[in-house]
Amino acid sequence: MAEYRICLIFIAVFEVIVIVLVAHVGVGDPDANSNGFDWSRGGYSGLAFGVGALCSIFTGYLSMKVAVFSNVRTAVSASQEGAAGWRGAFSTAMNAGGVTGFLLCATAMLVLFFMCTMYSYKYGTDTVPNCKRLFESIAGFGLGGSTIAMFGRVGGGIFTKAADVGSDLAGKVVAGIPEDDPRNPGVIADNVGDNVGDVAGMGSDLFGSFAESSCAALLVGATSEALVAKGWNALMFPLAIAATGICCGIVTHFFATDIWPVKSEGDVLRALKVQLGVSTLLVTGSLWPIISFFLPDTFDIDGEKDKGTTAHVFFSIAVGLWGGCLIGFVTEYFTSYDYRPTQEVAESTETGAATNIIYGIALGYKSAVIPILILAADVYVSFSLLGMYGVGLCALGMLCTLSSCLTIDVYGPICDNGGGFAEMAEMHPRTREKTDALDAAGNTTAAIGKGFAIGSAALVSLALLGAFVTRVSMNKSSPFCNGATVSLLQPITFAMLICGGMIPYWFSALTMKSVGKAAMDMVKEVARQFREIPGLLEGTPDHGEPQHGECIRIATEASLKEMILPGALVIFSPLIVGTLFGVNALVGFLSGSLASGVQIAVSMSNTGGAWDNAKKYVEKGMLKFKVPGTDPVEYKVQTKGSDAHKAAVVGDTVGDPFKDTSGPAINIVMKLMAILSLVFADFFMSLNNGRGAFDVWITCTAP
Amino acid sequence: MAEYRICLIFIAVFEVIVIVLVAHVGVGDPDANSNGFDWSRGGYSGLAFGVGALCSIFTGYLSMKVAVFSNVRTAVSASQEGAAGWRGAFSTAMNAGGVTGFLLCATAMLVLFFMCTMYSYKYGTDTVPNCKRLFESIAGFGLGGSTIAMFGRVGGGIFTKAADVGSDLAGKVVAGIPEDDPRNPGVIADNVGDNVGDVAGMGSDLFGSFAESSCAALLVGATSEALVAKGWNALMFPLAIAATGICCGIVTHFFATDIWPVKSEGDVLRALKVQLGVSTLLVTGSLWPIISFFLPDTFDIDGEKDKGTTAHVFFSIAVGLWGGCLIGFVTEYFTSYDYRPTQEVAESTETGAATNIIYGIALGYKSAVIPILILAADVYVSFSLLGMYGVGLCALGMLCTLSSCLTIDVYGPICDNGGGFAEMAEMHPRTREKTDALDAAGNTTAAIGKGFAIGSAALVSLALLGAFVTRVSMNKSSPFCNGATVSLLQPITFAMLICGGMIPYWFSALTMKSVGKAAMDMVKEVARQFREIPGLLEGTPDHGEPQHGECIRIATEASLKEMILPGALVIFSPLIVGTLFGVNALVGFLSGSLASGVQIAVSMSNTGGAWDNAKKYVEKGMLKFKVPGTDPVEYKVQTKGSDAHKAAVVGDTVGDPFKDTSGPAINIVMKLMAILSLVFADFFMSLNNGRGAFDVWITCTAP
Repeated sequence: MAEYRICLIFIAVFEVIVIVLVAHVGVGDPDANSNGFDWSRGGYSGLAFGVGALCSIFTGYLSMKVAVFSNVRTAVSASQEGAAGWRGAFSTAMNAGGVTGFLLCATAMLVLFFMCTMYSYKYGTDTVPNCKRLFESIAGFGLGGSTIAMFGRVGGGIFTKAADVGSDLAGKVVAGIPEDDPRNPGVIADNVGDNVGDVAGMGSDLFGSFAESSCAALLVGATSEALVAKGWNALMFPLAIAATGICCGIVTHFFATDIWPVKSEGDVLRALKVQLGVSTLLVTGSLWPIISFFLPDTFDIDGEKDKGTTAHVFFSIAVGLWGGCLIGFVTEYFTSYDYRPTQEVAESTETGAATNIIYGIALGYKSAVIPILILAADVYVSFSLLGMYGVGLCALGMLCTLSSCLTIDVYGPICDNGGGFAEMAEMHPRTREKTDALDAAGNTTAAIGKGFAIGSAALVSLALLGAFVTRVSMNKSSPFCNGATVSLLQPITFAMLICGGMIPYWFSALTMKSVGKAAMDMVKEVARQFREIPGLLEGTPDHGEPQHGECIRIATEASLKEMILPGALVIFSPLIVGTLFGVNALVGFLSGSLASGVQIAVSMSNTGGAWDNAKKYVEKGMLKFKVPGTDPVEYKVQTKGSDAHKAAVVGDTVGDPFKDTSGPAINIVMKLMAILSLVFADFFMSLNNGRGAFDVWITCTAP
Repeated sequence: MAEYRICLIFIAVFEVIVIVLVAHVGVGDPDANSNGFDWSRGGYSGLAFGVGALCSIFTGYLSMKVAVFSNVRTAVSASQEGAAGWRGAFSTAMNAGGVTGFLLCATAMLVLFFMCTMYSYKYGTDTVPNCKRLFESIAGFGLGGSTIAMFGRVGGGIFTKAADVGSDLAGKVVAGIPEDDPRNPGVIADNVGDNVGDVAGMGSDLFGSFAESSCAALLVGATSEALVAKGWNALMFPLAIAATGICCGIVTHFFATDIWPVKSEGDVLRALKVQLGVSTLLVTGSLWPIISFFLPDTFDIDGEKDKGTTAHVFFSIAVGLWGGCLIGFVTEYFTSYDYRPTQEVAESTETGAATNIIYGIALGYKSAVIPILILAADVYVSFSLLGMYGVGLCALGMLCTLSSCLTIDVYGPICDNGGGFAEMAEMHPRTREKTDALDAAGNTTAAIGKGFAIGSAALVSLALLGAFVTRVSMNKSSPFCNGATVSLLQPITFAMLICGGMIPYWFSALTMKSVGKAAMDMVKEVARQFREIPGLLEGTPDHGEPQHGECIRIATEASLKEMILPGALVIFSPLIVGTLFGVNALVGFLSGSLASGVQIAVSMSNTGGAWDNAKKYVEKGMLKFKVPGTDPVEYKVQTKGSDAHKAAVVGDTVGDPFKDTSGPAINIVMKLMAILSLVFADFFMSLNNGRGAFDVWITCTAP
C-alpha cells in the first residue's frame, strides 16, 4: 500500500535526524568528539528507532492480513446451524483476534528484550550511569513505534472516514440510494478503510503504548542503585510484567473459546466480558510472586533509600490494572445504547439534528469526568508510592491485559466484515444474523478497548514525562538538578503550559478538516459517476460499472497528503520548544498538552461512539416518541427514513471523524511528543545546559 | 426579575460562608480568638463581597434598563432621511452603549477606591503586612462581582438560548412557519433573552474581570517594600491605569460621535474600529507619564530589589493592551464572513449539515492557536519583567480599553432591538435598513469584544493565581515559603492538574445539556399551543392569542433550575480541593483549569460565531455553488429555504449554546475559581498549614 511506502521514506529521513540530534551531545561531554558529537550514541538510538518503526509496520501489516484472511472463515463457520455455528464463528473470530493480540504484544516484548540484551554487551550493566545510557538508547524503539502509529492512525483515520463519510453523504445528497448500496462507488473504499483504521490503527497505537511504557519504566528503574546491584533480572522487571500479562491472556483465551464455549447469542457478550475480567484477575493474582522473584525486598528509587517495597510495587501496578478496567466500563456506560446517556442522545433527535449534536457533545464532555478522576487517582497513588517509576509501572499495569483487549478489538471488525462477505456471497440469512449479533457484542467491548487505549496513553505520556525529567536531572548542570523541580510559577513554564494545551486542538482541527474536505471531494466524485455512467443511477440491468478505483484513489491521496501537516506539527513542536526555550519550557509544554489532550481524546471518542449507537438504536426500532395529543398516550416507533433517523445520521456522520480520526489520534499525539522529548533530552541539554537558545539570547541582549 | 431574587438569596447565604471561612484563621494566629476565628477579618471580607455583588447586580440591571430605553430612540432617529438619520441613529446607539460602558467601569473603579480608602483607616498602610491584610479583605469585592457574573452568564445564557433554539426549532419542526413569526409564542421569550444575555451578561462578566484584575494587582503590589514606602498613590497605581483607560475612552467617544461623525453606511464599521484603535493609542501614549507620576523610579517586587522600573511597568501594561487588540482582530478574522474561514464553513453546507458541523468545530479549534500564542507571549513578557505584579498589570492593560469595548458591545443589541421595534411599529422601510446595517457592523465588533473578554479572563485568572501564591507564600509555614515553588512533578499537583482541566468540560456539558433540554420543552410547548389554540396555525384573522407567558415561564424556570448545578460545581470544587488536598493541589487544579479552559472558551465562541455568520452569508445570497456538469461553469445562488440554508441553520442552532452559554461562561469559571482560592487562601492555610485534610490523614495512617 502507498501508505507504507511513504512511511518507509519518512523513517529513512527521520532516522537521520534522530542519529544527528542524539549524537549532538555538546563539546565537553566525555564521549564527544571535538565537534561535540558522539556518533555511537546517535547510531544506537537510531538503530533502536529503526527497529521499533519496522516492528510497528510489520505488526500492523500482519494484523490486517490476519483480519482479511479470517473474515471469510468466520462467515463460513457462522453458516452452520445452532450451537455449533455460534461456537465456530465466535471461536474463529476470537482466534483471529488472538493471533493479532498475542503477535503484537509478544513481538514488542521479545524484540525489546533482545535489543536490551544486545545493548547491554555494548554498555555494560554494572553501574547506574551505564544502565541509564543503555536504556536511553533503547528509548528510540518506543519513538519508532509511536511515529509509525501516528501516521497509521492519522493517515488510516483520514482514509477510513473520508470514505465512510463521503459514501454515506453521497447516497443521501446525490441520489437518495440506501447506505452500502453496491451501485455507490464509494462503498468499496469504505470497506477497505475499516480494516486500515480499526485493525491496523488500533494495533499500532497500542504497540506504541506498550513499547513506550516499557521504555519509560526501564529507564527510570535504571536510576536505582539497588536495582542495578540486584542485576539484570531486576532491571528487566517491566518486561516481566508484560510477559505475565501475555501468559494470563493466553490462559483466558482458551477459557473463552474452549472451556466455557459460546452456545447462543446471549453468551457472546458474557464471553467477551469474562475474557477481560478473568485476565485481569489472573494478572492480579500472579503479580505478587513475580514481584518477589524479580525485585529486591526494598530498593531505592528517586534517590530515596528503601522507598520501594514489594507492596508498593504491587499497588502501583494494581491501581493501573483495575483503573483501566473501570475506565473501560465507564466508557461502555456512556456509549452503549443499553444505558440512559446514549438513549437520551437518541431521544433528542425528536427535535432534529441540532439538539442531537448538542446532546452528543454534552455527553462526550461529561463522560470525561469519571475517567479523569480515575486517572488522577492512579497518578496520585503510583506517583506517591514509587515516584516516576511507579507511574511507569502503573501504565504497564493498565497495559497488562492488552493482549486480551486487542483480541476483542480485532474480533469486532472481523465479524463485521464477515457479515459483509456473507451478504455479498448471498449466504444463508442465519449467517448474517449470527455475524451481526457477534459484531454488536464486539461494538460494546470495542468501546471498553477505546477507554483503555486513552487511559493508558495518558499514563504512558506522564511516565515518559517522568523519564524525561529523570534523564535530564541526572545531568549535573541541569536546571532540575539537586532536588530543584519544575516550577509551575516560572514565566516560560506557564506560558508553555497554555501553548501545550493548544496542540491537541490544533491537531484535531487539522485532521477533522482533512476528513471533511476529502469527504466532500468523494461526494463530488460519486455524483459525477452517477451523472456520467449511463444507467447507474436508475439501476438498469445493463448499467455501467461504478469506478471504485477512483474513490479509493481520492481517499488514499487525501490521507497521504493530509497527514503531513498534523504529523509535522506533533513532531516538530516539542523539538522547537526544547531547542528554543529549553527543558523547563518543554516540561510545561508536555504537561499542558497532557492536561488538555486527555479530556479532548476521551470526550471526542465517546461523543462519536454515542452518536453511532444512537443511530443504531433508532435503526433497531427501539426509539419511540409520544404521539402528541393522544390520551391514553400512544407511541410511534421511529424507523429508518424517519426524521429522527435522518437527524441521528447527521450525528453519526459528524461523529465519524470524532471517534475514528481525531479522538484516538490525540492519544498518539500525547505519547509521541513525550517520547520525542525523552529521546532528544541530551540534545536539548547540550544547548546551553538545557536553557534553550531563546532564553540565552534574552539573557545576553537584556539591557 | 426572578433571577435577581434568586441572586439576592444566594448572596445572603454565600455571605455567611465567606465570613465564617475567612474568619477561620486557625488557633495560633495572633489576631484569632481562642477558637481560631478572627471575626473582624471575616466581616471585612464579607462586606467587600456584599458590596461587589450588589455593584454587579446594580450595573447589570441598569445596563438592561438603558438598553431597553434606547431601542426606541435609535429606531426613531434612524427614521430620518440621509446623513442625519445615519448620524442620529449611530450616535444614539453609541451614546447608550457609552452610558453602560462608562457607568460600569466607573462604578467598579470608584467603589473599589472608596473601599480601599475606608479599609486603609482600619488597617493602616504603613507596613507590608498591614497593606497585605488590607487588600486581602478587598479581594472579596472581586469575588462578589464574579459570583453574580457567573449566575448572570449561566442563567442568562440558558434563558436566552433555550428561548432562541426552542422558538427556532419549533417553527421548523412543528409547523414550517418562518423564523420570528409573531404567531410563534416563543418569539417574545427570544427577544427578552437578547437583552438578558448580551447586555447584562457581558456587562457583569467584564465588571468581574475588571474588579478581579485590580484586586490581584493591588494585592501583589502591596508586597513591595518600596511601593508601600512611597505611599498610598503608589499602591493605588492599578486603579490609576483603570482611570486612564476610562478618560481615554471618553475622549474617543466624542471623536466617534461628534468630531468625525457617521454619514453613510460605509462609515459605520470604520467608526467602530476607530473607536477601538484610537482609545488604544491614547492609552499607550498616556501610560508613561502616569507611571512616572505614581510609581517610584525603581522598586522591589517578588522580593527582588530594584526589579521594577518605569520601562518594565510600561511594557507589562502595553503588551496586555496590544495583545488584547490583536486577539480581537484574530477573532474577527475567524468569525466574520468577509474572510475565508467562515466562507469555507458556509461552503461546506453543499454536502449537508454534517460537514458544516465538522468544518465549524475544526474552525473553532484552529482559531484558538493564535490567541493562545499571544496570551503565552503576554504572560511570558509580563511575568519575566515584573513577576506576578506584571501579570496583574498586563491583565489591567488588556482591560484598559474596556469602556470602549463595552460601548461597542452594547451598541449591537440596541441596534438589533431597535430594528425589531421598527418592524413591529411598521415604520418606514429605510429605518429597518439603517438599523440592520448598524447591527451588522456591531456583530463584527462584538466578535472583537468577545475575543477581548476571553483573553483578559485568562490573564486575570493567572494574575489571581499569582496573587494566591503570593498571599500563601507570605505565611511562614507555607509549603511555598523560602523560595520553594509549586512543582509540577509532585503527585498531588499533577493529579490535580488533570482534574482541573476537566472542570471546563464538565461545566460545558452541564450548561449545554440544560439548553438542549429547555429548548426541547419549549418546542413541545409551542407545538401544544399550535395544536390547542384554534386558528393559530392557519393564521385565520380571528385566531386565538399565542400564550407568550408560558414560553417565558419555561425559559425562566429552566434557567433558574439549571444554573444551580454548574454554579455549585464551580464554587465548591476549588473549596473541596483546597480543603482536602491543600494549596499545592489547588495551584495545580487552577493551572489545569486555565490551560484547558482558555482553549475551550476560545474555540466554542468562535465556532458558534462562525456558524452564525455562515448562516447570514447564505441568507444574504452570497453563497453560490457550481452547477455540476455545466460548461462553461454556471453558479446557483443558495437562498433561504435551500438545502444549504437548512444545513447552515443546524450549525447556527448548535452554535447558539456554544457561543452564548458555555463558551463565555467558561471565562467566568476560570476567574471565579481563581478568586475563590485567593479569598479563602488563609482558610486553606489554617488547615494543617495548607497541606489539606486528606494529605494529613494519609501521613498519619501510612504504615
